[in-house]
Amino acid sequence: MADDLRILGIDPGLRVTGFGVIEKHGQTLRYIASGCVRSNAGQSLPERIATLFSGVSEVVATYCPDEAGIEKVFVNVNPQATLLLGQARGAAIAALAVGNLPVAEYTALQIKQAVVGYGKAAKEQVQHMVMRLLRLAEPPKADAADALACAICHAHSRARILAE
Amino acid sequence: MADDLRILGIDPGLRVTGFGVIEKHGQTLRYIASGCVRSNAGQSLPERIATLFSGVSEVVATYCPDEAGIEKVFVNVNPQATLLLGQARGAAIAALAVGNLPVAEYTALQIKQAVVGYGKAAKEQVQHMVMRLLRLAEPPKADAADALACAICHAHSRARILAE
Repeated sequence: MADDLRILGIDPGLRVTGFGVIEKHGQTLRYIASGCVRSNAGQSLPERIATLFSGVSEVVATYCPDEAGIEKVFVNVNPQATLLLGQARGAAIAALAVGNLPVAEYTALQIKQAVVGYGKAAKEQVQHMVMRLLRLAEPPKADAADALACAICHAHSRARILAE
Repeated sequence: MADDLRILGIDPGLRVTGFGVIEKHGQTLRYIASGCVRSNAGQSLPERIATLFSGVSEVVATYCPDEAGIEKVFVNVNPQATLLLGQARGAAIAALAVGNLPVAEYTALQIKQAVVGYGKAAKEQVQHMVMRLLRLAEPPKADAADALACAICHAHSRARILAE
């Protein structure tokens, strides 16, 4: 398996899609960048989808990742919310796929397990462990932390996933 | 309002996304093309999303529509199906938006109302009326018919929609 792998993690959402970029050098992980793409609630759904797609495309063009991991969204109790989230996720995956990135999917449980060692960990624990694993000076913001955690999960899991 | 408008209608789905292209010359509608983009159920979700995105992008590049109409998907009783359909729709909307197309959304009820004059019309009635309105020799296949119906609905509704 190649060393020096750059991984993009995505935490999809219609309002906010978080992203996190890390590098894997052997067993060492290095923080590269993180942030989020926001869509304007005042715009139409197609406009918001376009904003998310363009934003994720820009992240791919800026950081040139080799592979991507994206969080599997849970089915919400509110079907309309599930539908909106699904559409946001579809746009994000399309942006990754257009960038010719191999995309792996992870559940929130798998991500927490990989980062905290406990599938039901609280948000703060995830932020804390992301900070420690990437040797950051302070915990990343919640949106970015989940995306970075997804990237870390992919770094740990890819050998297994790609071998399947 | 400009005459000679080329409209792309999309009926989104993860397995099959139908498309239909028509032209509006004044009050006259003309059939240009229709068909569908299929994704392979044996592939991963990201691969299927990529196929749908590329397919819709290709339709946009081939037929150069001026505007697009897309069917609003209904919230399924099965939340997992709703989520999959949402993701397919997000990819299709992203492809339209990347092509700089204005995208309008219509419910199945609005589409049937526009084409058949009755919101609860059967599929066969929609196919029959699409054939008549576009002066086709035979009824279009079901996937394409719904997409063409969506394009016809947009042709009839756009003056109102764009004025909102």
